[in-house]
Amino acid sequence: MSKGRYILLAVVCGAVAFALGVIIGWFSRSGLTAEDRAALNKCLASIEDADETIRDHILENIDAQRIRENLRQLSQKPHMAGTPPDLEMAELLRRNWLENGLDEVRLVPYDVLLSYPPLGREGPNNTAVTVDGADPARQYEDTRTLHIEPEYQDDPDAVQFFNAYSPAGHPVGELVFANYGRLEDFDYLRQVGVNCTGKIVLMKYRSGGRGQKAKNAASAGAIGAILYPEPADTNEPGGKVYPDGWNLPGTGTERGGALLETGDPLTPGYPATDYAYRLSKDKSSVFPPIPLQPIAYNDAQKYLSHLDGDIAPAGWNGSLPITYRLGPGFTGDWAGRKVALHVYTNTTMRRVYNVVGMIKGEVEPDRYVMLGNHYDSWVQGAIDDTSSTAISLELTRVFGGLVKDGTWRPRRSIVFVAWGAEEFGLIGSHEYVEQFTGLIKDRAVAYINMDIGVGGNYTIFAGCSPSMVDIIYDTTKQVPDPDASLGKSVYETWSERDPTDADADVKIPNLDWPRVSTDYIPFGLRVGTPLFTFAYVHDQTNYSPRAIYPSYHTAYDNMDLMERFVDPDFTVHRAMARISGELIRRLADSLVLPYDCRKYWLSLSAFLQATEQDFGSMLYNQGISIDALRSAVYNYTAAAEGFHDRLQAIDRKDPLQIRSLNDQMVQVNTAFIDIHQPHHSNKHVLYSPSGCATNRSAAFPGIVRTMCGGPADDEGWEEVKKEVAAITSTIQSAADVISDVDSILGQS
Amino acid sequence: MSKGRYILLAVVCGAVAFALGVIIGWFSRSGLTAEDRAALNKCLASIEDADETIRDHILENIDAQRIRENLRQLSQKPHMAGTPPDLEMAELLRRNWLENGLDEVRLVPYDVLLSYPPLGREGPNNTAVTVDGADPARQYEDTRTLHIEPEYQDDPDAVQFFNAYSPAGHPVGELVFANYGRLEDFDYLRQVGVNCTGKIVLMKYRSGGRGQKAKNAASAGAIGAILYPEPADTNEPGGKVYPDGWNLPGTGTERGGALLETGDPLTPGYPATDYAYRLSKDKSSVFPPIPLQPIAYNDAQKYLSHLDGDIAPAGWNGSLPITYRLGPGFTGDWAGRKVALHVYTNTTMRRVYNVVGMIKGEVEPDRYVMLGNHYDSWVQGAIDDTSSTAISLELTRVFGGLVKDGTWRPRRSIVFVAWGAEEFGLIGSHEYVEQFTGLIKDRAVAYINMDIGVGGNYTIFAGCSPSMVDIIYDTTKQVPDPDASLGKSVYETWSERDPTDADADVKIPNLDWPRVSTDYIPFGLRVGTPLFTFAYVHDQTNYSPRAIYPSYHTAYDNMDLMERFVDPDFTVHRAMARISGELIRRLADSLVLPYDCRKYWLSLSAFLQATEQDFGSMLYNQGISIDALRSAVYNYTAAAEGFHDRLQAIDRKDPLQIRSLNDQMVQVNTAFIDIHQPHHSNKHVLYSPSGCATNRSAAFPGIVRTMCGGPADDEGWEEVKKEVAAITSTIQSAADVISDVDSILGQS
Repeated sequence: MSKGRYILLAVVCGAVAFALGVIIGWFSRSGLTAEDRAALNKCLASIEDADETIRDHILENIDAQRIRENLRQLSQKPHMAGTPPDLEMAELLRRNWLENGLDEVRLVPYDVLLSYPPLGREGPNNTAVTVDGADPARQYEDTRTLHIEPEYQDDPDAVQFFNAYSPAGHPVGELVFANYGRLEDFDYLRQVGVNCTGKIVLMKYRSGGRGQKAKNAASAGAIGAILYPEPADTNEPGGKVYPDGWNLPGTGTERGGALLETGDPLTPGYPATDYAYRLSKDKSSVFPPIPLQPIAYNDAQKYLSHLDGDIAPAGWNGSLPITYRLGPGFTGDWAGRKVALHVYTNTTMRRVYNVVGMIKGEVEPDRYVMLGNHYDSWVQGAIDDTSSTAISLELTRVFGGLVKDGTWRPRRSIVFVAWGAEEFGLIGSHEYVEQFTGLIKDRAVAYINMDIGVGGNYTIFAGCSPSMVDIIYDTTKQVPDPDASLGKSVYETWSERDPTDADADVKIPNLDWPRVSTDYIPFGLRVGTPLFTFAYVHDQTNYSPRAIYPSYHTAYDNMDLMERFVDPDFTVHRAMARISGELIRRLADSLVLPYDCRKYWLSLSAFLQATEQDFGSMLYNQGISIDALRSAVYNYTAAAEGFHDRLQAIDRKDPLQIRSLNDQMVQVNTAFIDIHQPHHSNKHVLYSPSGCATNRSAAFPGIVRTMCGGPADDEGWEEVKKEVAAITSTIQSAADVISDVDSILGQS
Repeated sequence: MSKGRYILLAVVCGAVAFALGVIIGWFSRSGLTAEDRAALNKCLASIEDADETIRDHILENIDAQRIRENLRQLSQKPHMAGTPPDLEMAELLRRNWLENGLDEVRLVPYDVLLSYPPLGREGPNNTAVTVDGADPARQYEDTRTLHIEPEYQDDPDAVQFFNAYSPAGHPVGELVFANYGRLEDFDYLRQVGVNCTGKIVLMKYRSGGRGQKAKNAASAGAIGAILYPEPADTNEPGGKVYPDGWNLPGTGTERGGALLETGDPLTPGYPATDYAYRLSKDKSSVFPPIPLQPIAYNDAQKYLSHLDGDIAPAGWNGSLPITYRLGPGFTGDWAGRKVALHVYTNTTMRRVYNVVGMIKGEVEPDRYVMLGNHYDSWVQGAIDDTSSTAISLELTRVFGGLVKDGTWRPRRSIVFVAWGAEEFGLIGSHEYVEQFTGLIKDRAVAYINMDIGVGGNYTIFAGCSPSMVDIIYDTTKQVPDPDASLGKSVYETWSERDPTDADADVKIPNLDWPRVSTDYIPFGLRVGTPLFTFAYVHDQTNYSPRAIYPSYHTAYDNMDLMERFVDPDFTVHRAMARISGELIRRLADSLVLPYDCRKYWLSLSAFLQATEQDFGSMLYNQGISIDALRSAVYNYTAAAEGFHDRLQAIDRKDPLQIRSLNDQMVQVNTAFIDIHQPHHSNKHVLYSPSGCATNRSAAFPGIVRTMCGGPADDEGWEEVKKEVAAITSTIQSAADVISDVDSILGQS
């Protein structure tokens, strides 16, 4: 063969060998079958952690000006629950949420008992009027109180001053001033010889529920109750009143529900569906027993200034330019006059709606991260709670947009809710949770609540389930303070402005179980869902309780006030939206839920300590031991430490192990529910209200309840004993949830 | 170059090219990163369906002779709950289960109220004795009844005849015969003028609970009660009595608990832990009100044959060779004599134990498949329920063996339980479920129960949750009938011997919600866990209720009787073990749970139909509509159909979708629980007992309860109305569980 042929041979050999090599190399590498490839893809999706770039997208896309426009549109007119503008708003939200890209949005209806004064500008007005003692029929028109903010008297949708669920009635009696209308206030009046029997009692708002004040007054013998917002409690000292500032003028007053319990009054424990069983109204014990009417502080001043009797003790004074006296009755010009209440408020059945929308999760659609706020308002409610509605509407746009354009879909489902009829007593949220208790218990991983979302511009005011503390701190570190000039995060200003311990070197923001009344309540107390509720508030160092602001529940809570005095550039709204948005994103998208169940230890040990301090010796004297309760708290603590260790060692490749540990982190919260607790909805052994008006102990509420006033007899002590065991058993059950799966074998 | 060199060059080129090709081929194939490989492996494990070869291993390895040896050892001596041999058995089971390969076994203790007559051979005996009417102190020793089977009178561990929780007492009175002691029996006596006041009432066992008979007797005025097993109800006609056959001789009688409610009497609703709250005994209403004593039928015959009064109606007769009369009092030689009861039975606190063991699941360890039976017996209890204990011990060997030698580990955890103190009132299982309600609700996918496991050799006697019907039919098709000569499956003989409809062309075995009282009750009625309870029974066509056999609760229920008359070659035991074993395997190992939630439709429509038939017009007349209830049933049905379609389309590559649908299939069962139901543990709206003694309607039990006896007043009708709404709401909640995840948005 020629040289050329040999070379050709070598090349051909080489080529053949090369091709053979490629083939052998290809096939010798273990490949994936199509089936395995499909499984792998599903699997990789099921263990995929959150795409953190979405965070920036969300934070950056939330648009302050859009929230402003939302609020302008939504707070345009009054939208009290059960009225046509209320339904219009529900429908508008549904439409907009769908347009914004949510997968599904529905109106969930309930038929509930609401309570109105005469509506529109017709019919009689709720008023308080002094009358001539000699001639009760004679009414002094000059002392007729304002029944609505004068600026709104021609707006047919603006409701007059009233307390919902007040009985209608026309009691006439001498006036007595009873400070906040607390039990101790009536005790004081009794001590100084002021008899409330047959009287009309004038009380300041704050330091207690409206209905409770009326109930306390009735217990003291009163036949009518008047409430007013004392400027010392309500207004910023030295500030101007609206429209020159955000303080409440003397021509408006706080409306508000006066039920003694939350939820639809006629369907306790069950949803107010069309087929629900309804109590007859006279069977319900949740209504205030006597007529109850709020008045503006100009009117209150007029009455107080004419009061007879002793000077009120120093602590009872407000800032009105008068001498506060106790009464009873008037002196001077008004001597002999009595006060007449004219209350025309009546209950009525109305259909109300929750707006509920969903972005279905990609991987775990049966796990829900829920965001809720109420959309009803007493009047326009720009602050309460349309600011939150405007924020959540913007969030549906940002989240919905990501879904619509295919950029992203969360791991878990996100559920947006706008609650109806919150102002009347958390009605929409109660009925919803009553209807879906099972689904919420088994599937909701978090409920985030906003109410009075932007009630100020100073700092965060928040509360949460113990497990959620860390993620909330983390999230607020991600979000810049609304005041960009500070160059700080929300977390930093929050920790400076409302620290848990003002003297600590490293300040930590104040964050505990929420102590306000809003829509997280049924989630927290009936189901035990991990929850967070928050708002932006003003600096409450000097005035007003944290969650309340001067124009609260008045017609002055409007867009103009918001834009001029609270959040002119809507950066506070944006910060709220960013916090909610980032929280929702993380909860919905994290492979492993960012919860820490060890944090219950703080609550548990505080309850235990208060129990020991406040009741320990009394219990001991009755032979009631709390040793087992103490052990249960320690068992919980140990179990939570063990769980935390397992969580650190989690196999992030194992979708079912992750799901299982996530489930445990949620279920440990719901495990603090004891279905045998006597109240139909308040079943949480740590956070339910004790219902004891005379003892404010921070001990376990069931112990405070059964110890309230001191058990009267052996049977009473048996109730205490039973409750101690029930709490012990419940805490132990919570420990079992986060113990190894063999906890079902009992203690070894 | 020489030719050789060219060839060498060609070879070298070829070799280099080949190597290069292999490398390029290898790398050009998209391979798996180590990380992806790990994920793939986890994923493949998480979606791996059951290895069906394990079925054969289990079916073949179950060894009849080992079960025989287990039973011989376990039934060697009496082991009544709370006695030393009872604890010895618990410890023996723990030891053996661990040796057999379970991962962990523990004794779970409870301190509960039991009830004993004097134990050992000392102290007084419970007896019924006739006395001279003239001189009540004089006892006729010739009429003293047997207090124990004579063959066992020297065995210190064999307890004498007694009814647990009978009050101690020594009533003296004339004897009356009251048939089964049902309400209608006492009505009859009243109608024919037999006054029970101050009398001792003799009643037959069956057709009602022991305590209920005493309660009925007390309501009729009786001061003492005597029970006896009527041979006509107990014994196989024409059969021989033990030791010549398995019929009950006239020298033994049925012991038994007489509580009016199940579970520890002092801790209703809560577990009887060391820290539990305990009612004082006089606060409990679950004890029979008058002394109660069982006697053998020889003694009953003696008493009955001397009875005075009218001849009993035909339906009251038994097969004793006497004329059955009603009394009151005796005639002939015995005229004037009265009957004295001497009951020394007393309650006592005892620690009892459940034995709980686990094989941890490989993939979903937090999902439990549970198998339980009680290990306590009144005497040796070879049938009741040591046969089941012997079976489950063999199952721990077979399953444990697979785990020990590394052959297999189930997907889900398997939990074996031997219950303590069942005979006293399902106490061990109640306390356990009360302690672990949350874990069981969230994690248990099935509870399988055996009781009186081998009480006969004729056919299966079973009950289950609707969802489980199919898998039970399937499983019994896999297992050959104990009588190999038939060449049939258990399913085939079952469908022939106990068909749902005897006239059907294709016979289907009788399988419905269980109607017997055993340890599934708290799982079923408090939690709603999917469950199955079963046993092998004799041919009950002609005698005795299905779940009962002649020597029930006597000392004749022993190994000898089992080996000679019930299951000589232990093939019935083996069939029971195979059914349990295969069920457990499938439930623990199937990727997709083999449940069909559509099957609730049958129950729901039957309840609805009975409600319409039995109460429809009464409800209509009161303006109580059941339209919404009907809608809820239809909504459930539609939801179940939709779910079934989704289940058919399940992506078997998606571990989380599978987990989610599996969870729904379990949760739909627990969704029929209504926590507001008034009974502390019976919360199931379909299967709870109505508690109504006078109306046996098959309508929804809450409706039967509230309609019981006809509501007395408006308030009573309100309760009915409320209950109709509660049931409607609960069924709707169950529908929501199996609807698409957007069911949380309400109906569209």
